[in-house]
Amino acid sequence: MVSDVRLSLDEVRALALRGLAASGVSDENAAVIADVMTSAERDGCKSHGLFRLAGYCNGARSGRIDGKAKPTLHDDAPGVIRVDAHRGFAAPAMAAGRSTLAKKARQQGIAAMPIVASHHFAALWYDVDALAEDGLVAMAFVNSKSFVAPAGGIEKLYGTNPMAFAWPRAGKPPMIFDQASSASARGEIQIHLRDGKPIPEGWAIDADGNPTTDPKAGLAGAQLPFGGHKGAAIALMVEMLAVGLTGGKFGFESAADVNTDGGPSEGGQMMIAIDPARFAANGDSGPVLSHAETLFEKILEQDGTRLPSDRRYAARKRTPTEGITIPQSLHETCLACCQS
Amino acid sequence: MVSDVRLSLDEVRALALRGLAASGVSDENAAVIADVMTSAERDGCKSHGLFRLAGYCNGARSGRIDGKAKPTLHDDAPGVIRVDAHRGFAAPAMAAGRSTLAKKARQQGIAAMPIVASHHFAALWYDVDALAEDGLVAMAFVNSKSFVAPAGGIEKLYGTNPMAFAWPRAGKPPMIFDQASSASARGEIQIHLRDGKPIPEGWAIDADGNPTTDPKAGLAGAQLPFGGHKGAAIALMVEMLAVGLTGGKFGFESAADVNTDGGPSEGGQMMIAIDPARFAANGDSGPVLSHAETLFEKILEQDGTRLPSDRRYAARKRTPTEGITIPQSLHETCLACCQS
Repeated sequence: MVSDVRLSLDEVRALALRGLAASGVSDENAAVIADVMTSAERDGCKSHGLFRLAGYCNGARSGRIDGKAKPTLHDDAPGVIRVDAHRGFAAPAMAAGRSTLAKKARQQGIAAMPIVASHHFAALWYDVDALAEDGLVAMAFVNSKSFVAPAGGIEKLYGTNPMAFAWPRAGKPPMIFDQASSASARGEIQIHLRDGKPIPEGWAIDADGNPTTDPKAGLAGAQLPFGGHKGAAIALMVEMLAVGLTGGKFGFESAADVNTDGGPSEGGQMMIAIDPARFAANGDSGPVLSHAETLFEKILEQDGTRLPSDRRYAARKRTPTEGITIPQSLHETCLACCQS
Repeated sequence: MVSDVRLSLDEVRALALRGLAASGVSDENAAVIADVMTSAERDGCKSHGLFRLAGYCNGARSGRIDGKAKPTLHDDAPGVIRVDAHRGFAAPAMAAGRSTLAKKARQQGIAAMPIVASHHFAALWYDVDALAEDGLVAMAFVNSKSFVAPAGGIEKLYGTNPMAFAWPRAGKPPMIFDQASSASARGEIQIHLRDGKPIPEGWAIDADGNPTTDPKAGLAGAQLPFGGHKGAAIALMVEMLAVGLTGGKFGFESAADVNTDGGPSEGGQMMIAIDPARFAANGDSGPVLSHAETLFEKILEQDGTRLPSDRRYAARKRTPTEGITIPQSLHETCLACCQS
């Protein structure tokens, strides 16, 4: 009989911390990464919760990713703070640069934070969430190794390349969306394969470029962008912002690296932060944010709609008291990560 | 018998200038707007060429849009230059602010230009093209009045909300994409109606929210975003950047304005410019641009692919010598615009 294991959010964090520490990740980095996973479990975002722990741990254990890396900040321009992750995970690099990015956005009106030599394995909404909670509009772009075919082509080239956008709200958590440029997450195809189910049309093509509903053939071929050539254009833009401007590795470059440990590949990331107060004639963001609320109200007036982040926020209300559940098998995998 | 009229690009420009002058548009504004239409015809982008002249002229003649408006610049922050179009067309506002935006991008690394109280009727690629020819990465976001349903809803709320992205290339015209957040341009549905043809599924829903292939029912109902809820999220982001941050009018606000002249509705626009040289450790954009070329090469290695702007650039090689053609009926409409 397969059973689930129920954990409190404190237990989630403690489990993640133990696994990371046993894998040689520094305490400082582990605290940040454990918070990413705990926040994902808190928000019902299972694909980026404890499900990721083994990948983090194995990437660090193999030595491919430096779990003890100390990110460094480089003040390249008044509106640009570059973070070098030094072959470490992206989350500590993001955490190291966040307050400087926010400060620059407030000073300049808009600022950018390229992150380079990093390994991103987290939900991208997490990266924009703290900036928007701080009153800033935020955008994030991150690439992965090649999985997605370009428009008109049949071979994988772009990463699944998510982008996230956050808009701050007075007295409420921010409006955030976080979406891959691919029609589906790669993990969703893997879950269909595991469960022996066909994938929907439009998710992938096989190695010969034919549409396929066979998850195995789709994984061997290429994923498709969402929305045809327009989604492919978004995927291309993410490569240019997250890699072209940062000096990171394009999807096809990191796909050429040896990576057998299941952890994230090396890529690049771009953050943009905007202070709405600097876009208001009198420096008061209040009317800007109030005006935005009128559009949110118009959306929610229609039956069947919700704001992109509402499902996460509903989970966020439940999990601090109810805790979360993970499959027994995942719990065992996490416990195995805690062996030194 | 229906025949086409062949015009040189100089004749296109002269015709546009005459129509705009006869409609009370100032010489300075007319020069900019005529260049937008001439550039569109040059690039084979018929939907934004002389096809738009009557809308510009009628919008100015009705007095709803001020053809003589003088845009003003407001230096809101080191990284922000705001342009007030003063109820005029967007193109002169864009032209007025462009060099200041470029200067700020070079100084700060990244800069933004909100444009407010403007009426956008041009191809959005035009707005990013000059910045990228100047060596900058550029993004543009503009809204329109409500035509598109939000995710899960059935009533039109968002504009067709195009975004454009440009990446500079050494010795070549920039890589640019310019795409609506809707599955199709509104004009494409109107052309299907005119020609008595059904529209593809996925373009629109009728007034009751049912999928429709009837162009008339689709125009009366709502257009759909491209790529489902992900395209709807892009449309929402465009509203927030182009209107939320600029203090312009959301799609539902401008849809409430009286507009019977066929010209563009009032909206907002956001431009972001990035200097790649400020994202290179030594201030040299050369390696940044060379690295990007390796991805473009990988795209073009695959059969059936092209870069998003290649079709326009192919037309650009032909039209300076061959000229362009427009339908006789459109030519007559343009000549009618030239009557004072």
